[in-house]
Formats: sequence, C-alpha cells, structure tokens
Amino acid sequence: MSHFQFELIHTDSRTGARVGRWHTPHGIVDTPAFMPVGTLASVKGLLPEQLKQVGTQQVLANTYHLALRPGAEIVEEMGGLHEFMNWDGPILTDSGGFQVFSLAQLTKMDDEQVVFRSHIDGSLFELSPEKAVKIQEQLGADCIMCLDECPPHDVPLEKMQDAVDRTTNWAARCRDAQKRDDQALFGIVQGGTDQKMRERSAEGLLPLEFPGYAIGGLSVGEKPEDMYSTLDFTTPMLPVEKPRYLMGVGRPSDLIEAIIRGVDLFDCVMPTRNGRNGMAFTSQGRVNLRNQKHARDPNPLDPECDSPGSRDYSRAYLRHLFMSREMLGPILISLHNIAFYQKLLRDLRQAILNDQVEEFRAVHLARWNASF
Amino acid sequence: MSHFQFELIHTDSRTGARVGRWHTPHGIVDTPAFMPVGTLASVKGLLPEQLKQVGTQQVLANTYHLALRPGAEIVEEMGGLHEFMNWDGPILTDSGGFQVFSLAQLTKMDDEQVVFRSHIDGSLFELSPEKAVKIQEQLGADCIMCLDECPPHDVPLEKMQDAVDRTTNWAARCRDAQKRDDQALFGIVQGGTDQKMRERSAEGLLPLEFPGYAIGGLSVGEKPEDMYSTLDFTTPMLPVEKPRYLMGVGRPSDLIEAIIRGVDLFDCVMPTRNGRNGMAFTSQGRVNLRNQKHARDPNPLDPECDSPGSRDYSRAYLRHLFMSREMLGPILISLHNIAFYQKLLRDLRQAILNDQVEEFRAVHLARWNASF
Repeated sequence: MSHFQFELIHTDSRTGARVGRWHTPHGIVDTPAFMPVGTLASVKGLLPEQLKQVGTQQVLANTYHLALRPGAEIVEEMGGLHEFMNWDGPILTDSGGFQVFSLAQLTKMDDEQVVFRSHIDGSLFELSPEKAVKIQEQLGADCIMCLDECPPHDVPLEKMQDAVDRTTNWAARCRDAQKRDDQALFGIVQGGTDQKMRERSAEGLLPLEFPGYAIGGLSVGEKPEDMYSTLDFTTPMLPVEKPRYLMGVGRPSDLIEAIIRGVDLFDCVMPTRNGRNGMAFTSQGRVNLRNQKHARDPNPLDPECDSPGSRDYSRAYLRHLFMSREMLGPILISLHNIAFYQKLLRDLRQAILNDQVEEFRAVHLARWNASF
Repeated sequence: MSHFQFELIHTDSRTGARVGRWHTPHGIVDTPAFMPVGTLASVKGLLPEQLKQVGTQQVLANTYHLALRPGAEIVEEMGGLHEFMNWDGPILTDSGGFQVFSLAQLTKMDDEQVVFRSHIDGSLFELSPEKAVKIQEQLGADCIMCLDECPPHDVPLEKMQDAVDRTTNWAARCRDAQKRDDQALFGIVQGGTDQKMRERSAEGLLPLEFPGYAIGGLSVGEKPEDMYSTLDFTTPMLPVEKPRYLMGVGRPSDLIEAIIRGVDLFDCVMPTRNGRNGMAFTSQGRVNLRNQKHARDPNPLDPECDSPGSRDYSRAYLRHLFMSREMLGPILISLHNIAFYQKLLRDLRQAILNDQVEEFRAVHLARWNASF
C-alpha cells in the first residue's frame, strides 16, 4: 500500500479530533474532509472545476448506480472514473451494498452473495464480495469499500450479529479478491448502536489490516444522540494511524460532533439534494429560498462564503430562480452548500490545530440555532 | 442617444455583410453578434461567467416573462436587470409583443392596447406601447424594443397591412413614451414576406429615427428561402449606419445567410433549448448525444470548440449524462452550443474582414451537410 499514507499532523489535546493528510495516487486530501456525492459520476449540476474552486479535494461515486448505468465495463473502457468524469483528484467508491439493501428489490441473500433487481428496469443482478471488488477495480477509484451488510438500525440483536459476522467474512473475501495495488480497500465496521456488536465487528476486521476503516450503519434512522454515543465507543476501537470514514453523514452539526469523536472522512448528499430544493446552509442557519420573505430581499445569501451563489446574487433573484424552476437556482445553491461545507471543514481543521475545536462547536451550534 | 454608437468597421466588397462595433452603456458588442436568450433573466443552466468565457458579449431577456414573474417592479427595486442577473455587459429586452401573440391567451386587441391572460396563472394583463416602454425602463436593458404586432406569416395581405400600420403607430407612441436616455429603443419592421408590406413598414418607421432597427415576423413558420429572399429586399431599406437586428433567428446556416444580407444582431433559443435535449451543433454537423452509437465513443464532442463540454469529456460520458438525466448534460451541451455559435460569429467577422464571407459560407454549409 505504498501508494497511500495517512499522515497525522495534530490531535486535539482535549478531544478525539485530529488533523491529517491522506496521500493517494491522485493527490492529497486534508482531513477532516468532506466528499460531495457524484452518484452517477457527476455531482449533480456542477462541473469539476467548480467543485475545486470551493475547496473540494475528493469526491464519491456510487458503485451500485454506475454498475447499472452505464455499466462498469464502459467506465473502464473509457479509462476509469477519473477520466470518465474528468476529475483528476482522489475518488472514493462505495461497495454498492447500502443501495442494494435500500434501493433495489432484494431477491435473495445468503453468505455467498446478494441477488437483487435493478430499481431502473427490474433486471436481475448478483453482487458478491468478489464482484464488488471487481467492479470497483473497473471503476478505478482511489479508495474502495468492502461489501457489507447494512441492516436497519432497529433489528433484533441476533440479526445484527449475523450482519456483523457476514460483513467480517465478506471483508476477508474482498481483501483476498483485490488485485490492484493502487486502490486503498477500506473495511466497514457495522453493529448498529450496540457497543458489543461494534466491538465484535472491529475485532473481526482489525486483523485484516485494511489501510482505512469506515463506520457504516449510522445515520440510517437512529437519533443523533445515539449516533454520537455510538461514535464515542466506536472510534477508539479503530487504529489511530489509519483514516476513519463515517459513511453518509451528514448535517453540519453531525460533522462537528463526529470530528470531535475522531472521524476523518465524510460524504453526504445533503448539500446538493437540499440545494436543489432551495434549502441553503448558511453561517446564520438554514435559509429556504422559496420563502416569500425573500421576494424583495437585496442581500446576498451568505457573504461569509466564497461561491457565486453565496455573494453575487440577491436572495430575491435566487428565490425568483426557484419559483421559475430555472436550473440556475439548483446549480447556485448546490455549489453554495458545498462551499459552505468545505469552508466549515477548513475552519474546523484550523480550530483543531489551535486546540479550539470545542469552542468552535459552541459558537457554531449557537449561531445555527439548531436549524441543521 | 450619445450613450450609443454603431461604428461600422468594414463592409464586404461583394455582399451586404459588415463588421462593426456597437457601443452601449455596458460595453462594446462586436457585430455580427449572437445573443443567448435568458428568458427569465437566466440563460438556462449557465452562469454569466461561463457565457463570457465562450465569448458572449450581450444577452437577451424576455419582457413578457419577466413582467409576469417576478414582475418588473421587483427587478427595478433590485437595481435593474444587470444587477438582478449579475450580467454587467449589454442586455437587450424584447417588447413582450411576440409572446403575447404566441404564448398568452389573447383576450382583446385594438389600436389602444392588447389585453391577455398570463400563460402561468390565467391572470389578466394589459400591454400598450407606453406600458411596454415603461416595463422595459424598469427592467433597464441597454437595448429595448417597440411594441409590435406580429401576425402569422400567412395572414391575408389586408390583415398584414393592418399589423404593419398598427406597428408603425405603436412605434411612434413608444418613442414618445421613452423617458430614459441611456436605452436604445429599436423600431421593428414587420410585413411578413411581402416586399410592399416591408416597404410600407420601413417607410413608416424610418422618419422616427430610431438608433437601431429590428426585423420581426421572420422565422415564424415560413420557408428558409422565403426568409432569405425577404432579407434580400428588407435590409437595403434600413439605414446603413444603424444596427440591424433579426429577431429570433436562428440556425447556424440562417445566421450566415442573414449576415451576408447585412444583418448585425441575432438571438435564438436553439443553442440552449436543443442543448438541453442532447442535440449538439458541431464543426462536423449535428450530433445527437442520446444516440446509442456514442455509448463507447471515447472522442470529445468537438475539439475545435473551446468549452468544457466540447473537449474535456468523451461522447460516452456525455451520452451517459443524458441517459441518466443528470443536469450536467444539459449544462455542458448548452454551453458547448453557445461556444459553437460564438466561435462561428468570431470566424464570420474575420471572414468578412478578409472579404471571404462567401467562401466561408460554401465551406461551412458543405461541412455541416444540411444538418442544421
């Protein structure tokens, strides 16, 4: 794994928060880091150069969606994801497991593999640990994920234990199946909000010595407090010297809480999905641009943020775009929201370096007034 | 009208084609020029900086649409169109007349005014020459248009003559109603494809000494040959020293033919509307990106053109975006198509300066092979 190195620069003196540099074959990611989601090899509505301009270093793409459309073979034939989507920085792909359990129609699952029907046209697909790795090798991201089973957070403990054990077995098979040495394969800790289950999962995965560990099965319907308390006991189970990735999380407040508990990497559709609906994350809290009160508001959305939608247009204009269903509305607010997230992460990294991350949390949570 | 000056730089020795510079309060437009259409104060899917990057100097916005939503008062209150849509270059607005006759439900028309119902919510609006000027003064574009009556191209001559005469009367009233001196008010020549009608219209409008003249009532369903022959006799009726604007035209081949006949300004929704549907104008002719044949095509769309969608992505990726309904597809192809139009106009200006515009036409029409 000489292509990868996780360089730990500073750990906060009072919390688990840490600043690092994650070296990949396509460049360095300053951690803690947020990855915008480019499900189908496109962060919806945005050009790669726009993502970079607001500070994005790494993006995520979804294996499940790309395997169905256009198909991993076509992406491979076109030179892999980096060339396909014209993103020359680091990319992470998930294993497809989460979408198989949440989006597709599950037909059969056993220890060997999952069989499901495509949510697009109902055609039948199989996914095994070996196949998940194979597809991700065809896609060619820098960071790839083991196939895991992600059960609902409230399943009985017995079922959760089965999922944990299957995830461990599949992780070992993924590791054995890996052929490319220029991709970092992450293990995924499962176990819901139960400490014993998380321990069982971590104990199964740690001997496999993955270059990084993801925490799955959170932000799937449990309360935020339960997510935070789960992180309280889960991150200390993971190696200090390897990056920790909290999958699919989350709101800005979730990011701060998770970073304080020692998480390094995040991805979430919220900035783009909410942005497409006219909901902006701002330094003063949530703003819904469809609201009538913005109809004659000449003020910019958030001058503290450095993107066109944040500072170059009145809220009246932004509202007009959403009321008129103009594409530029979703574009500008998606970009603003990503700019907001990337600025938040930059500021958090600086706060950690200054050993001030708890003060940072207090100030920002108060400013946002529980609006996200 | 000291804010405006039309500087004629060169007229082709064999055709009516000419190169000029149109000086406006918001900068210079090199003519012949193409204006992308920003109906609702947004060129669909594109940021102003992207329009500029591909060579756009002036954009058009639609008075009818903006008067209905968000309303001219709000645009005025937000500082006018330039500030509202963050475009600091020249802007042209139409009078709203064309949309009243094509989009709205016409309730009543007499010499005084038009009464119509909004196509959005059915509410009742009145538009008179005075009101068309008032609204356009509130919007604040650099170039504004007289209210005209634009009948179908195949109405009986008697009806066409009524429309011509009403357009002349309305033009005089528009001129009298104008209060701002930092906007150039254009008269609009009507008369369909009939030479006598066009003469009647021009003879009525010329004494009013507008700073520019538009040619309306073309590209409304008549054959291209009829449009060209109409231009053959219409442009010579207009003053040499003033800009001539052919409204709502058109295909790249239409632009070449009209430029050869002495037209200086154009606008059309084709590059953006077709772009949103996956149809690209390229130096080798029309490309439909939904076509299966592009599924594994690693080649860029059109390397002769300088925009991200033209050169940075494979046709396979662009097709994938359209098949997956990703917003980035419409964005990239709209921008490419505008880049294609702006490059075409740049190349045409050079060809005119070189007295080679007929050779340019022959080469390009052959290359495009009648595909647009």
